Amino acid sequence: MKRILNIETIEYLDKKVKVCGWVNSRRDHGGIVFLDLRDRSGILQIVSKPDLVKEIKEEYVLEIEGTVQKRPLKMVNKELETGEVELQAEQIRVLVKSEVPPFDFKNKDSVSALSLPTLLDYRPLTIRSEKIKAIFKVSAEVVDSFRRTLKNLDFVEFQSPNIVPVAAEGGAEIFHIDYYDYDAYLAQSPQLYKQIMLGVFEKVFTVTHVYRAEPSITTRHLSEYTSLDIEMAFINSWEDLMDTCEILIKSILTDVQKDCQKELSLFNDEIPDLKVKIPRLKMREAQKIIFERTGRDNRKEPDLEPEDEREICKFARDKYNSEFIFITHYPTKKRPFYTYPDPKDIDHTLSFDLLFRGLEIVTGGQRINDYEMLVKNIKKWGNDVKDFAFYLQAFKYGIPPEGGFALGAERIVKQLLGLENIREATPFPRDTERIDQRLSLSQKRKKTKTKPKKKSKK
Amino acid sequence: MKRILNIETIEYLDKKVKVCGWVNSRRDHGGIVFLDLRDRSGILQIVSKPDLVKEIKEEYVLEIEGTVQKRPLKMVNKELETGEVELQAEQIRVLVKSEVPPFDFKNKDSVSALSLPTLLDYRPLTIRSEKIKAIFKVSAEVVDSFRRTLKNLDFVEFQSPNIVPVAAEGGAEIFHIDYYDYDAYLAQSPQLYKQIMLGVFEKVFTVTHVYRAEPSITTRHLSEYTSLDIEMAFINSWEDLMDTCEILIKSILTDVQKDCQKELSLFNDEIPDLKVKIPRLKMREAQKIIFERTGRDNRKEPDLEPEDEREICKFARDKYNSEFIFITHYPTKKRPFYTYPDPKDIDHTLSFDLLFRGLEIVTGGQRINDYEMLVKNIKKWGNDVKDFAFYLQAFKYGIPPEGGFALGAERIVKQLLGLENIREATPFPRDTERIDQRLSLSQKRKKTKTKPKKKSKK
Repeated sequence: MKRILNIETIEYLDKKVKVCGWVNSRRDHGGIVFLDLRDRSGILQIVSKPDLVKEIKEEYVLEIEGTVQKRPLKMVNKELETGEVELQAEQIRVLVKSEVPPFDFKNKDSVSALSLPTLLDYRPLTIRSEKIKAIFKVSAEVVDSFRRTLKNLDFVEFQSPNIVPVAAEGGAEIFHIDYYDYDAYLAQSPQLYKQIMLGVFEKVFTVTHVYRAEPSITTRHLSEYTSLDIEMAFINSWEDLMDTCEILIKSILTDVQKDCQKELSLFNDEIPDLKVKIPRLKMREAQKIIFERTGRDNRKEPDLEPEDEREICKFARDKYNSEFIFITHYPTKKRPFYTYPDPKDIDHTLSFDLLFRGLEIVTGGQRINDYEMLVKNIKKWGNDVKDFAFYLQAFKYGIPPEGGFALGAERIVKQLLGLENIREATPFPRDTERIDQRLSLSQKRKKTKTKPKKKSKK
Repeated sequence: MKRILNIETIEYLDKKVKVCGWVNSRRDHGGIVFLDLRDRSGILQIVSKPDLVKEIKEEYVLEIEGTVQKRPLKMVNKELETGEVELQAEQIRVLVKSEVPPFDFKNKDSVSALSLPTLLDYRPLTIRSEKIKAIFKVSAEVVDSFRRTLKNLDFVEFQSPNIVPVAAEGGAEIFHIDYYDYDAYLAQSPQLYKQIMLGVFEKVFTVTHVYRAEPSITTRHLSEYTSLDIEMAFINSWEDLMDTCEILIKSILTDVQKDCQKELSLFNDEIPDLKVKIPRLKMREAQKIIFERTGRDNRKEPDLEPEDEREICKFARDKYNSEFIFITHYPTKKRPFYTYPDPKDIDHTLSFDLLFRGLEIVTGGQRINDYEMLVKNIKKWGNDVKDFAFYLQAFKYGIPPEGGFALGAERIVKQLLGLENIREATPFPRDTERIDQRLSLSQKRKKTKTKPKKKSKK
């Protein structure tokens, strides 16, 4: 007999079927035992005589043959998609046994009650909870919608390498690799490769992992994260980039709303109103507004602090009824060498961040496409032009006016679902303390190096 | 005026339009100058008076306004999709200048004449050639079709991490990362994470980069490559995996055939006949056949040599008219710890490779899903069980009978297009000698380490 999914049983009333799955829970009622069987489609109630399920415990993997029957009216469970039926077990085969899980993680409340370290220490188990599974269903939809939307806009996908010879974004926050007998690094961004590929396809995107050796522990940084990266040529103005970004974000959220209804219902936050046009504000104006609203004077700071980002998002909601806001014109000094300076104010750039519910989820801007200007900036930013000779070839032979941006996939999911910590938004978070297991449990501590400095930013 | 693409000009006869692109070539004919303008959609012939294009050279990026006109009948170029029209330039704006390219790389023959080192040293330029661009259009289609097909088969995508604490596949061919003050490695495969995620979604896939510190120089190995990885639960038999693999490969090739006609026409090789069922042969039988056909006696070898793979593919073509062949039951010792041994012959495994035109493009098999058996094998393969404690949790709490496989994206493209070297099938190949620029040109040679041993396998 061919296995059917739990959800399909509702179409097999009074028929004999075979289902497979994990024992989500077991309830003994004297002469009768109920099992909740979990498969990828959902939960199905199994009714069995005790002797058929004698040794069977939670998380055992079973193959069950039986007859689908309508539940008595008072036994209907409206919470379940299969809540009007149950399977009367006739034959049960244990495919594999399980130990008893160390704690309850099955329902929404029990999993929410777990501490983050427990959640992650036991990730291979806790990720089976319906609520956590939902996070990764939403993640998959975000990434897939990103690609589908761009493909429809005539963008071409490419694979960006992660082993790189130089730090494109500058800074010390870069992981070193022993590469044969040379030094290499983990990519901080696919920036240089996007720009090269733009010389081929004009409009390109890549879904890639990027790496930041971020020594501070925050709720919004990961050492490895998924970057949804685009770059587009022949822009008329750097504002074209924000227009495309707005279309893309709204398309992604529309798709999530359509395809992840069940998953979204497990979380409190709703999809933002997508009819609202996203406001655009210069960073210096934002600082002024924050000063006026809170008395906090950060008007000379080169960047927005996390609390500034939260405050300006409150402002956007109050004034524009928008859960998003573009902040533009970040200072030239705070952006990478390839960022285009505003011709009318060269201390600030044609750059932007998109904030969503208090957190930056996108960074982008126009890039310098003039060869001489780029060479000058590479030097000015303290780099060796020789290290960038490969990249510079693209500009030696003509790259049109262009720009791009990058979305942090985990940040979108975090903000959309109202997760407290970015670590919840990736199945296998990497940080200063953890690669799967906690590093402190590892035997592999290096003896030659000192501990990284940790400061606790919120 | 809004820019239109070159290909769109055929719908604007006698109308005024604006186009943008790169100067692919320039031909001066006395009182008239012809430019071939290249954009992402193809080539358009521009006709101009000499004074409008005085300084304009190859690879300059232009914005041109003019009127689309029908070419005189004898001037029609059937090689071009826009070959029946041309644009009479009225206004030309240089968006950015270019140096003169150091060699001709524009047409099929000139780019084929370039040596591989030249092709790669000048990658940001040579990748603009129509023929090389076509390789990466096909790559994008292969990857996208892989995902679309699996999504239709109810698989769920996830992001597999590249920073890992242990070597899943064993062996010394692994890159080391300085991870804060700990040791970490670049993933050799997403194997362990696929198996954990299978406990959540039953059928999962990931498109990820994997890393092999492969010191030998061959035409088929890269240090970083794109792995198309799947894993599926509740299999009835390990042969289900080959069935799914066959469906998937045929679906990918069907999509490439449909969506990349223009690109395929630039290469000599054709899409294989997809109606032919792929034959399946045990490795030991393959060795016997090779011995009978060639007299080469490798019947006691633990694996097929590259020349064996080529010979057995010839056999598959001769006997079954198939360009593919599954080779099964590789020796237990040659496969990773998680491979399921054949219960009828424990020295061989329920594993397979798929060969295509002489090269392995897929590796897969059933996995051990029994906790005790897995622990035993981890030890037997010389690993520390403690290093695998995170992974083992999945099996402690029940993983169904399962298996999976991985396709090398660059290998499929190489074999499909008949490329000589795998380095041609990735935009930015990484190997012992190159990360973008040649490593020998780099200042970053480490002083403490010796050179890797290089043996030249074909």
